[in-house]
Amino acid sequence: MSHIVRNQSKLLARTRRIGGQVAAIEKALAEGAECAAILTQVAAVRGAVQGLLLELMSEHLQEHVADESRRDLRKKEIDTVMSLFRSYMK
Amino acid sequence: MSHIVRNQSKLLARTRRIGGQVAAIEKALAEGAECAAILTQVAAVRGAVQGLLLELMSEHLQEHVADESRRDLRKKEIDTVMSLFRSYMK
Amino acid sequence: MSHIVRNQSKLLARTRRIGGQVAAIEKALAEGAECAAILTQVAAVRGAVQGLLLELMSEHLQEHVADESRRDLRKKEIDTVMSLFRSYMK
Amino acid sequence: MSHIVRNQSKLLARTRRIGGQVAAIEKALAEGAECAAILTQVAAVRGAVQGLLLELMSEHLQEHVADESRRDLRKKEIDTVMSLFRSYMK
Repeated sequence: MSHIVRNQSKLLARTRRIGGQVAAIEKALAEGAECAAILTQVAAVRGAVQGLLLELMSEHLQEHVADESRRDLRKKEIDTVMSLFRSYMK
Repeated sequence: MSHIVRNQSKLLARTRRIGGQVAAIEKALAEGAECAAILTQVAAVRGAVQGLLLELMSEHLQEHVADESRRDLRKKEIDTVMSLFRSYMK
Repeated sequence: MSHIVRNQSKLLARTRRIGGQVAAIEKALAEGAECAAILTQVAAVRGAVQGLLLELMSEHLQEHVADESRRDLRKKEIDTVMSLFRSYMK
Repeated sequence: MSHIVRNQSKLLARTRRIGGQVAAIEKALAEGAECAAILTQVAAVRGAVQGLLLELMSEHLQEHVADESRRDLRKKEIDTVMSLFRSYMK
């Protein structure tokens, strides 16, 4: 069973919370709410998405690298994860 | 008219796109999709939220600082924006 | 007097500390030290440089935007700062 | 031979370049140089340190996880790397 399926309900709950935060931003924009409040909401979504990403990455490394018996596949998977990191970390 | 109202349709479109991306992640999780693909989707949402945040911040500084005639209010607003930056930039 | 000159000793002290941290990493590398320790040292330098950047940015906005009486120069300076942010924030 | 020793000259060259950049910032501060230029220099150092960190992390994962034959040590090492990521990524 993959770590996605094993942690499905936890990951889904976390993603739905983020979806709810984004819907709240949409509502605030539609109502022309005060911009400092919207800025804070968007910063909070960024933090929530970052947290979800780190959790998925950790689980991914544990399952597809630590639990992988073949050395060549471990090396390949680490390259995949590192290129993802480089793509969004400056 | 505030920059939120003035740019409402552009900001709403951008936020709805992010909402759509989050819904797609939820669907992928529910279907137990392949985790490397989900990782990439979440990294993309992080980039999209970051872009929205920088756009809002730029507009906020232009309207509430550059266009603000009172020096004391400009100084106060800059402190607000910088504390937001510090809160999510390590 | 510019904010650089006004805060010179504080900024110089902070920069020298970062220089010392980098020299310590160089020494650790030369001695073939344990890599987890070096990783932690480099992460600490990244945090210190980030802190220096945010401090300079805040002072820059206060002096060259909040204290600037001309609106057109304020707007131009905000664009400069935001493009710096975009250049290193993904 | 550890990846630190194996890549020593490359890592030392990279670290010395960063040291040189920091020394240049110190000189600019001492001379009361123009702050936008100093801001750009500090942002460049942040990018260089980030690059060094990602390189070390990738090598660390390859040597201490991919090349590690014991599963329990692989799992432990991944936790170490992920906690480092969490400590500086918000």
